[in-house]
Amino acid sequence: MILRLDDILSLEKYYRRNLINSISGYKSANLIATHNEEGQSNLAIFSSMVHVGATPPLQGIISRPDSVPRHTLENIRETGFYTINHVHEGMIEAAHQSSARYEGSEFEATGLTECYLGDFPAPFVKESKIKIGLALKEILPIQLNGTYFIIGQIVYLDIADDLVKSDGLLDLNAAKSICVNGLDEYHLPQKLARFSYAKPDKPLIKSL
Amino acid sequence: MILRLDDILSLEKYYRRNLINSISGYKSANLIATHNEEGQSNLAIFSSMVHVGATPPLQGIISRPDSVPRHTLENIRETGFYTINHVHEGMIEAAHQSSARYEGSEFEATGLTECYLGDFPAPFVKESKIKIGLALKEILPIQLNGTYFIIGQIVYLDIADDLVKSDGLLDLNAAKSICVNGLDEYHLPQKLARFSYAKPDKPLIKSL
Repeated sequence: MILRLDDILSLEKYYRRNLINSISGYKSANLIATHNEEGQSNLAIFSSMVHVGATPPLQGIISRPDSVPRHTLENIRETGFYTINHVHEGMIEAAHQSSARYEGSEFEATGLTECYLGDFPAPFVKESKIKIGLALKEILPIQLNGTYFIIGQIVYLDIADDLVKSDGLLDLNAAKSICVNGLDEYHLPQKLARFSYAKPDKPLIKSL
Repeated sequence: MILRLDDILSLEKYYRRNLINSISGYKSANLIATHNEEGQSNLAIFSSMVHVGATPPLQGIISRPDSVPRHTLENIRETGFYTINHVHEGMIEAAHQSSARYEGSEFEATGLTECYLGDFPAPFVKESKIKIGLALKEILPIQLNGTYFIIGQIVYLDIADDLVKSDGLLDLNAAKSICVNGLDEYHLPQKLARFSYAKPDKPLIKSL
């Protein structure tokens, strides 16, 4: 199938939405938890988390336009803090349900458990085995389509001990972390191989 | 394991790099192909592709600082065009090898095949089953760490016909598209379930 820009823009709306949300390949699925100034919590699934840097530890997410209320974006602006919580195989249904437009807290509605850790001001998802607390650093408006690129610094990490390998890499297979295709299709990955640092004149060392 | 910002910044460098590159969960792995004004092609693996919007179809990638030469970033700036090419199971070793610092073209060095499609000005990777041609729309500098958020509009798509489902979603399992953990660990996902659009007062419909 060959499509040019005009063809893409002429596609039926839901077909285009599925295709373009799928075109980047697999994405991580994470629950972002926040609360507003009145203490009302919010939970929403995002598939747009992206590594910005390791030193300092920065992560980005894309938020859709705030032409309609976006509680996650509003709460991050109000409080300056949010958490990112990995979705594992046992949580996919509740995590997907968090995308419904609830009046109250998605924690209550989905059965996921709100918890506070240390003195970190935003709520975490208790069921997640990999929990990340972030402080807002910058919101970059994307004029092209009214979205926002939200950059936060990791200031708190709570990870189940058996998930961290000796060199710092997380054992995502053991965590049963999932990934998502498009907006609604969930997948469980299985390790194929790990490769050594690539150099021009050396063959890669492969480990299983 | 609980780590605060000070703990993270005190970690040994490679341990921190692995941990923070792994913390977002699984990421897509894509080959970005470009050429410079002299026609010299370049190929590099990226795991930072992120959906920015479907209408118009926009995708973002993070480029590391240009304090050392970054051919992908330079070529995108020079020519305004680049391609994103999915990595499948049979390509992981060559794709990973593309991250080595070659003097010449990574196509020759890795054995992947450079090809041109239609009148699109940048090269594609022939072996990829999902090929995306983009026109540069905006480069947002991220002052926090000197990286860049590169946003492109999809203007050309070439996808193997049997990979597009009737509603537009790609069949990434059939494509054997892979995902990556951290910088060097490759995984093959398998579908768990697809869920209906979530609404507050309706149970999800699950399909396998």
